[in-house]
Amino acid sequence: MNVTVRGRTQTYRTVAFDHARNAVLLIEQRLLPHEFKIVATKNFRETAAAIHDMIVRGAPAIAATAAYGLAQGALAYRGRDLRKFSRHIETVYQTLKAARPTAVDPVNAMNGVRAAMRAGKTVAEQQSLARADAEEFASEDVRHCEEIGRHGARLIRSGMNILTHCNAGWLACVDIGTATAPMYAAQAQGKKFHVFCDETRPRSQGATLTAWELAQQKVSHQVIADNAAGHLMQRGEIDLVIVGSDRTLGRTGEVANKIGTYTKAVLAKRHGIPFYVAIPLSTIDWNLKCGFDIPIEERHEHEVLGAWGINKRSQREYIRVANPTSGARNPGFDVTPPELITGIITPVGIFKPKELWNRRRALGFAH
Amino acid sequence: MNVTVRGRTQTYRTVAFDHARNAVLLIEQRLLPHEFKIVATKNFRETAAAIHDMIVRGAPAIAATAAYGLAQGALAYRGRDLRKFSRHIETVYQTLKAARPTAVDPVNAMNGVRAAMRAGKTVAEQQSLARADAEEFASEDVRHCEEIGRHGARLIRSGMNILTHCNAGWLACVDIGTATAPMYAAQAQGKKFHVFCDETRPRSQGATLTAWELAQQKVSHQVIADNAAGHLMQRGEIDLVIVGSDRTLGRTGEVANKIGTYTKAVLAKRHGIPFYVAIPLSTIDWNLKCGFDIPIEERHEHEVLGAWGINKRSQREYIRVANPTSGARNPGFDVTPPELITGIITPVGIFKPKELWNRRRALGFAH
Repeated sequence: MNVTVRGRTQTYRTVAFDHARNAVLLIEQRLLPHEFKIVATKNFRETAAAIHDMIVRGAPAIAATAAYGLAQGALAYRGRDLRKFSRHIETVYQTLKAARPTAVDPVNAMNGVRAAMRAGKTVAEQQSLARADAEEFASEDVRHCEEIGRHGARLIRSGMNILTHCNAGWLACVDIGTATAPMYAAQAQGKKFHVFCDETRPRSQGATLTAWELAQQKVSHQVIADNAAGHLMQRGEIDLVIVGSDRTLGRTGEVANKIGTYTKAVLAKRHGIPFYVAIPLSTIDWNLKCGFDIPIEERHEHEVLGAWGINKRSQREYIRVANPTSGARNPGFDVTPPELITGIITPVGIFKPKELWNRRRALGFAH
Repeated sequence: MNVTVRGRTQTYRTVAFDHARNAVLLIEQRLLPHEFKIVATKNFRETAAAIHDMIVRGAPAIAATAAYGLAQGALAYRGRDLRKFSRHIETVYQTLKAARPTAVDPVNAMNGVRAAMRAGKTVAEQQSLARADAEEFASEDVRHCEEIGRHGARLIRSGMNILTHCNAGWLACVDIGTATAPMYAAQAQGKKFHVFCDETRPRSQGATLTAWELAQQKVSHQVIADNAAGHLMQRGEIDLVIVGSDRTLGRTGEVANKIGTYTKAVLAKRHGIPFYVAIPLSTIDWNLKCGFDIPIEERHEHEVLGAWGINKRSQREYIRVANPTSGARNPGFDVTPPELITGIITPVGIFKPKELWNRRRALGFAH
């Protein structure tokens, strides 16, 4: 997508590969929205550290980063011994896998690259296949987001006010995003609409990342406190809700996403406002049979007890907001049941949540 | 209530009067929860400034402050000429009224003091009556909160998890509070329970004031992001919700309160969790016929775009959290309809919201 820095507009992907330097190029997301910087990792260990340190975040984005990291590691190998090369690849794979141990997308992405490499009979052939497959993985992510945008844009009419929660934007993917894809596609079609970004406490990804993205793409938007959506719905100021998902259960249609998503779905249902979830296919979990079995990460209480931002001296700073002698609970995700979800926007079409299982072949079910 | 500073526990009211020094004593709420300090205003102009500058906030608390300020102004008068004294009182009244022009409680409180003064035949008698009536006003506020506590404590059983939103605690009243009154009363009865304090963005009164209050009274509690309540309800971790109110419509049972209250009521209804609103009688509006006619203050966007807290150098600081080129919407209040409210806890008993009108004589309806 477009990024304007000091008046100059350029097109970037969240994750890209520089073949000449054998470097993975990443937007340094920890500095956003206050500073825009591209990081070039020099080797697979730096790429793994970038995942671990959250320079890059978002399941599709870290999956592409891991795929590129595996190719980067393969391409750095000097020698012709296939067995030594395989041991090297195993090291690269394990290093990248350990960078975010709970995520499944990077592992799936790397498994794909490794499977593609097996067709090569020499180190050079395998290196070339790794590079090609990582690129293909990233391109497919972009195509899927484009398809989500194409299907989802039909839901957006000029004059609408759209609510979104957290960041399921292009910064979470290779490009375009999931929840934002219909917005960007509708904008390209000349539709005029307004987006309310839930700030999404405690980590404020809506106020920081989504608001930054929308500002860069010149989409009309405002940040709201998470508390304000109900009031705006009550007063008729929200027409459509689109969010992303961290995990969608293919068997039940339940959607796990950032804490607060469930609340917005309950409010939307009460007000008869359509509530859509935009997902890449990699987000669908075909195994779990019950949303209550989705592990909900309890994160550190300092996220709730304070905030990160920029102080008057333009320095990044954490401040303690809450009473110093109080603690906090900090569940990171929640689960929205299918009866609150109008539709799931996928790269292959929009489905009712309970339709996913019947459509499992089209949706990439592979058992 | 009790406040412990450097290991020493003392009892304070939010607002009190020092007769010897003719000073109004106020807890400096802008420094909480990071510093506890009592401010003594030397004259009625300083008292008005304390209201204006939000050293004291909360409708009952500023009402008592204005009543004391009027007595303070009366007592400062030197002379015996009743007509000059009356002109002086008018100046005091207008100065205090102008300190928070949209609030109705301080005006009602001062009207009461002025009415009581009329029984005096000399300046000295009127001064004495002003002082006595201001004290009576403050004492009545405390008694009303005690009664709210007495009625509301019946709702709390040991082992319960209680959710509250914003600060309707003793800091918003002269003492004890409204939403917190049942908790303090239940604690005094030996009941053990846990309170989740919504942080209550954007001004974070839950994370700062309510958490501080509960910590001081040694009530078990944790701060949560406003986004987390829905998830906790879904997992059976909340048994009861008690909030305050800025304005309750006596004719309809609609409740205006801090932004986000409506959302919690919608969630509580979905989960079959009792949702109670604790109010002093002064909060009931007997005139308005429709909640949509309650003016909803749109506050400055910097509240949503950043946060106030304490930095590493222990300095109070505002940080910008959101994308620097984005704006915000910031409605300060919302309106909860009666069908979502299990009961209204008043000093004279607990009523269904739609019962208020039938009970209007007992509830102080004065038309």
